[in-house]
Amino acid sequence: MTGITIEPNRLLKDLYKLRSFGARGNGVVRPAFSDCDIAARKWLSERIKEAGLNPIFDPVGNLFGLPPGDGKCLLLGSHSDTQPEGGWLDGAYGVIAGLEVARAAVAAGGPAIAVVAFQDEEGRFGPLTGSRIWSGALPLADADKLTDTSGLSFAEARSSMAGLCEEAFVDPGRFTGFIEAHIEQGPVLDSHSETIGVVDSIVGIRSERYCIRGQQNHAGTTPMALRRDAFQGLVQFANEINKQFADIVTPATVWTIGHVTLHPNATSIVPGRVEFIVQWRDAEEERLDRMTAVMRDIAARTAESRGLEFERSAFSAIQPTQMDRRLMTRIEVAAEQLAAGNWRHMPSGALHDAANVSRLMPVAMLFVPSIGGVSHDFAEDTAAEHLVLGARVLATCIGA
Amino acid sequence: MTGITIEPNRLLKDLYKLRSFGARGNGVVRPAFSDCDIAARKWLSERIKEAGLNPIFDPVGNLFGLPPGDGKCLLLGSHSDTQPEGGWLDGAYGVIAGLEVARAAVAAGGPAIAVVAFQDEEGRFGPLTGSRIWSGALPLADADKLTDTSGLSFAEARSSMAGLCEEAFVDPGRFTGFIEAHIEQGPVLDSHSETIGVVDSIVGIRSERYCIRGQQNHAGTTPMALRRDAFQGLVQFANEINKQFADIVTPATVWTIGHVTLHPNATSIVPGRVEFIVQWRDAEEERLDRMTAVMRDIAARTAESRGLEFERSAFSAIQPTQMDRRLMTRIEVAAEQLAAGNWRHMPSGALHDAANVSRLMPVAMLFVPSIGGVSHDFAEDTAAEHLVLGARVLATCIGA
Repeated sequence: MTGITIEPNRLLKDLYKLRSFGARGNGVVRPAFSDCDIAARKWLSERIKEAGLNPIFDPVGNLFGLPPGDGKCLLLGSHSDTQPEGGWLDGAYGVIAGLEVARAAVAAGGPAIAVVAFQDEEGRFGPLTGSRIWSGALPLADADKLTDTSGLSFAEARSSMAGLCEEAFVDPGRFTGFIEAHIEQGPVLDSHSETIGVVDSIVGIRSERYCIRGQQNHAGTTPMALRRDAFQGLVQFANEINKQFADIVTPATVWTIGHVTLHPNATSIVPGRVEFIVQWRDAEEERLDRMTAVMRDIAARTAESRGLEFERSAFSAIQPTQMDRRLMTRIEVAAEQLAAGNWRHMPSGALHDAANVSRLMPVAMLFVPSIGGVSHDFAEDTAAEHLVLGARVLATCIGA
Repeated sequence: MTGITIEPNRLLKDLYKLRSFGARGNGVVRPAFSDCDIAARKWLSERIKEAGLNPIFDPVGNLFGLPPGDGKCLLLGSHSDTQPEGGWLDGAYGVIAGLEVARAAVAAGGPAIAVVAFQDEEGRFGPLTGSRIWSGALPLADADKLTDTSGLSFAEARSSMAGLCEEAFVDPGRFTGFIEAHIEQGPVLDSHSETIGVVDSIVGIRSERYCIRGQQNHAGTTPMALRRDAFQGLVQFANEINKQFADIVTPATVWTIGHVTLHPNATSIVPGRVEFIVQWRDAEEERLDRMTAVMRDIAARTAESRGLEFERSAFSAIQPTQMDRRLMTRIEVAAEQLAAGNWRHMPSGALHDAANVSRLMPVAMLFVPSIGGVSHDFAEDTAAEHLVLGARVLATCIGA
């Protein structure tokens, strides 16, 4: 058993307090660099100081809490910004759980634990901006040119925190590893009545835009056999990938056609063009490659059989991230101790700061259930007992 | 053999002249009641007078050319308005071909032939407005309340022709039947190198709007097995109707999904809702009924198997119109005489004024080929020899 004992009421009280910055009903509107995001970070820095850690804002607003001295230590945390219409837990849970474990560790006499609240994980200026910059994946000079949907630049946004921020980034060499606790944001744990997810990987994400070109025609006078209907090309493509992926995928593999635009999109006109985006996610690079190959083959055969043209563009690929085996084992042991038989290994289908941090050090993640799998929505929630259990697992594994 | 001999050069010269009203390159912009539409009708009324007929504008701008006296006669014609971006032939061909045959008949000493250029066939104020009003399907008082996309009412539009128009409608009882020559507007004749289509029916048109509701979700964290993806519901529905319609349809049956809207239409979000419109056309009412039943059954089974809701709305049904057997026979005999083995029976997949006129008298239609099947486009065209041939068939059948 660990000697580090968290205080459930303090954990929940701080979570509720953090929700109050930008609260909308049960949800939160606290985008990166908004007034309430900055106010929340100031409040967090006070809690960090109270915990006996040294609060440091880096040049892009990532907030670290560092233990005294310069010894190596584990880093815990996540992000405290939210979606434009976000849930109250999301990244906030990992930040407060990390803070609670860090202060419980101080009370227990060690080990030293550092905490972090990354900035702009939710992508006001692009995906996971704060951890991307800190990890070295995105040079600061490039980041400064990014703009949000209103045209505001990242450089302007971070200047609003200039008075708070240090000029230097925190040295990642100080940390032995990073553990990010997070709500699952999906239905797997909740639908299986399980309480802890030990993440084995963060999936890779690929996406590609397709444009199918056929022949726009009169929907009354053009016989079916003479049509080159772009939308029917999409139907055949989507149906075929569903069939052929069945031989390739695991139950954790996902693929989505979420964006579709028809032209001219009129009742009485055979569609001459359709644009759509396919996104596919899996933890195995090789499986992502096979899916890519299957789709391209189906596109070519659909084009051939229907007299259509398939154009591909905007291919993007984010690599999968494997969690560190040693850190995972510590989480597994703690989960089995506190939730015997009631936890599972699972991939993270969503991206997290841990994917960036893995460039710098070993990383791991643990999930607590999302009720109904709902996330990025005001209705997002997790049972209080599961919030407490997740923090206990985190405390147990860092004390082990 | 007929004694009525058309003059090809006069036919083509008048077609070219009519194109000059609103010409845009090879195409025409001459919507109903536009200045150039009214100018074209005035020019047509002069040609009608020259042909020895009496030009009459009815209260809604339909232009008739009536032979002297009050004897019964056949009516030939179509419409002279165009789509907002229209082809030069479309309805204009049937109007000028009718005029040419009428004046050739006068020169031949009979029979007496009347001609008509209907107003707003192309639907500035709704489908086939001029013939719909004349046929009694649409009361004038109701028509006057219709508006175009700019908000102008039909009453205001027709007031721009008030000085030209009679106060009474032309008595349909005066006509023994109506034959409408038209370009095919589809690829069937052109792709078979045939020159004349003898229309056996104008298809019925049904359409219905569907809304599929599923569950909007995160495209990374929601496993395939737990998704209720509205777009995948549409893919299954569209694929299944293609399969099951194969046992019901003829080569002339068509069905189209031309309008699709996804929500929220984002790359990383499982679509929670999709709206689409299905339109299906066939000459047989019973087949349209069977297609309706198959679609409703597939919708119910797709909803059941995927945990989706299918809502239907805005069902609309235009009945098929059968051509008159006696008039058809006259066209068939003339076609076989002038284009032996090179004509076919076919349904009209597009609506035409003849469908409305069939409420009043026997109707028939003949088609000439559309190059590449192109219509409602500036590129619409027909070989001059086929334009001449169509008018000769018309002259031959009315002389028979």
